Amino acid sequence: LEEIIVTHKLAFIGFGTVGQGLAEILRDKGDILRDTIAFEAQVVAVSDLLKGAVYHPEGLDLAKLLAVVQATGQLDDYPDSPGLERGWDSFKTIRQSNADSIVEVSYTDIETGQPAIDHCRAAFESGKNVVMSNKGPVALAYAELSTLAKQNGVRWAFEGTVMSGTPALRMPLTALAGNEISEIRGIFNGTTNYILTQMEEEMEYEAALKQAQELGYAEADPTADVEGYDALGKVVILANVIMSTPLRKEDVPCQGISHLTVKDVIEAKAEGKRWKLIGRVKKEGDRVIASVGPEKVRWSDPLAGVMGAMNAITYECDLAGPVTLVGAGAGRLETGYSLLIDLINIERGSL
Amino acid sequence: LEEIIVTHKLAFIGFGTVGQGLAEILRDKGDILRDTIAFEAQVVAVSDLLKGAVYHPEGLDLAKLLAVVQATGQLDDYPDSPGLERGWDSFKTIRQSNADSIVEVSYTDIETGQPAIDHCRAAFESGKNVVMSNKGPVALAYAELSTLAKQNGVRWAFEGTVMSGTPALRMPLTALAGNEISEIRGIFNGTTNYILTQMEEEMEYEAALKQAQELGYAEADPTADVEGYDALGKVVILANVIMSTPLRKEDVPCQGISHLTVKDVIEAKAEGKRWKLIGRVKKEGDRVIASVGPEKVRWSDPLAGVMGAMNAITYECDLAGPVTLVGAGAGRLETGYSLLIDLINIERGSL
Repeated sequence: LEEIIVTHKLAFIGFGTVGQGLAEILRDKGDILRDTIAFEAQVVAVSDLLKGAVYHPEGLDLAKLLAVVQATGQLDDYPDSPGLERGWDSFKTIRQSNADSIVEVSYTDIETGQPAIDHCRAAFESGKNVVMSNKGPVALAYAELSTLAKQNGVRWAFEGTVMSGTPALRMPLTALAGNEISEIRGIFNGTTNYILTQMEEEMEYEAALKQAQELGYAEADPTADVEGYDALGKVVILANVIMSTPLRKEDVPCQGISHLTVKDVIEAKAEGKRWKLIGRVKKEGDRVIASVGPEKVRWSDPLAGVMGAMNAITYECDLAGPVTLVGAGAGRLETGYSLLIDLINIERGSL
Repeated sequence: LEEIIVTHKLAFIGFGTVGQGLAEILRDKGDILRDTIAFEAQVVAVSDLLKGAVYHPEGLDLAKLLAVVQATGQLDDYPDSPGLERGWDSFKTIRQSNADSIVEVSYTDIETGQPAIDHCRAAFESGKNVVMSNKGPVALAYAELSTLAKQNGVRWAFEGTVMSGTPALRMPLTALAGNEISEIRGIFNGTTNYILTQMEEEMEYEAALKQAQELGYAEADPTADVEGYDALGKVVILANVIMSTPLRKEDVPCQGISHLTVKDVIEAKAEGKRWKLIGRVKKEGDRVIASVGPEKVRWSDPLAGVMGAMNAITYECDLAGPVTLVGAGAGRLETGYSLLIDLINIERGSL
């Protein structure tokens, strides 16, 4: 019996680092994915606010697409062919292209979640799945958007919003299903974990932050990382998705690491502990409470050994016991992969 | 739209610690599993070589079943009712009961894999799924049995054979699908990891082994643990299932930890390393090579921080980067859960 492979048609909304990361994976591993796991994708559209837009219902050439964008930053040079359309904006692409799934990788305002939330609404109402790695819509509109997707018989997946391609969201819902998870705690920000790791080597906070910026871990404005807001967004997502509890950012006390000194870090070491920026979601009776803040973690805790820019998460399970996942929390390829694994599992009909 | 829940009918072959562990979970969490993840199971048969056998096509009462076995060790006292059958042996139960899935938890000879291999053959040929936590059949007959299951349109699942309920087998095939995994390495034996942890506190090997035995981690005959044979079985399973390579135990060099001294352990500590019993499966060109043996692991490696009886596994992924899973490697409830998660995913049609 030969397996019939249905080609999964994709439209990219936005074509920055993460979108190009996924496109490169599909270009370089397309044949392997078809041959080993029977997954085949075809990019039919790219619509980017600054780079322009191309659409062809029978598919675009990924190698050419990446080459022109990487050469000029513009899609204008993508070669003409019969049936090729140019200049479709995001909503026209979402509504009128023949894509099965929208890869939503536009720039999104973290405060409003826009335009990604409206992109999701348009996609679901047009019967299209959405995959994304952007925290905004999940942290701000999980209940509305997941209901809308369900009502329209389509899927919404966003593995990359927590720990990029490391399966922090999928694993507890699939491979740990049936457990009651009483607590989730983790290291959800690589920049701060890198800084704390360097401080243990007696590098002062400011110098460690500067190094993290030079290595590309931290943004020019590091506030979201060092004050805990990035981790806070992930904690809110975990509460909504894994604990089925509609927490909002405003509900969660949040403290960063900018007040910690080398002296604090060295003192903790002498106690057999390490400072880590811990995000936590915990069931207490009928309530779910959450927090983000620095904690002294014992060395015997699997989270204590997580060094550098790595992320990690521990699920306290009633049946399987504590299960910890350690992996990348960011990266072009890793986050590109998070979109791929969402598409693979949509194609498989699995969570 | 109300969800229709199909009851999953189970026959237990064997009813020792692990089987009773699963039965207790189903007794205590049956309602929660139905209400939260739409999973409902019914035990229709138990057939144990020493404890006896009962079968009722409309289901047995789990509370009574566990009570009589825990009181007398025998199923004779399970109350009569119209339609109840007694004394069916394993093969009659597998072939003639109305179970959808066989929970194979009989005692199995690790050298021959019997009678579990024959139980699998009989189940697949009768159109029944099999779940098990026993390493023997997977390590010895993976190719034959997985083909036979496929030919008969049924499923064979065995999450618990590696790291009990921690999803060491399911996660790479589902949540990490699409990655090429170039290397798997891990700590697959809790007894030896416990001993090595104690030796770091300057307890000698023999004393640490005795303590592990008193805590129930190590068997009266600890050879399989301390000489690496238990880890070896898991390495062979990982090679077959995750790397699709038919390695056999004889192909894998295997060394245990019984030659290590407190001096070795303390010396490693001074170098910023820890001795761990590492199982490894690695792609080298077109070949897959494997090994089991003690290695000095750097503290910066997530495996170094895994202490006591915990297990851990790292997958080197081309797209997601290195992903490490840390969790229990044994336990009544944890291994009982491994059977449950197999059944849940069979019911979901997922890997």
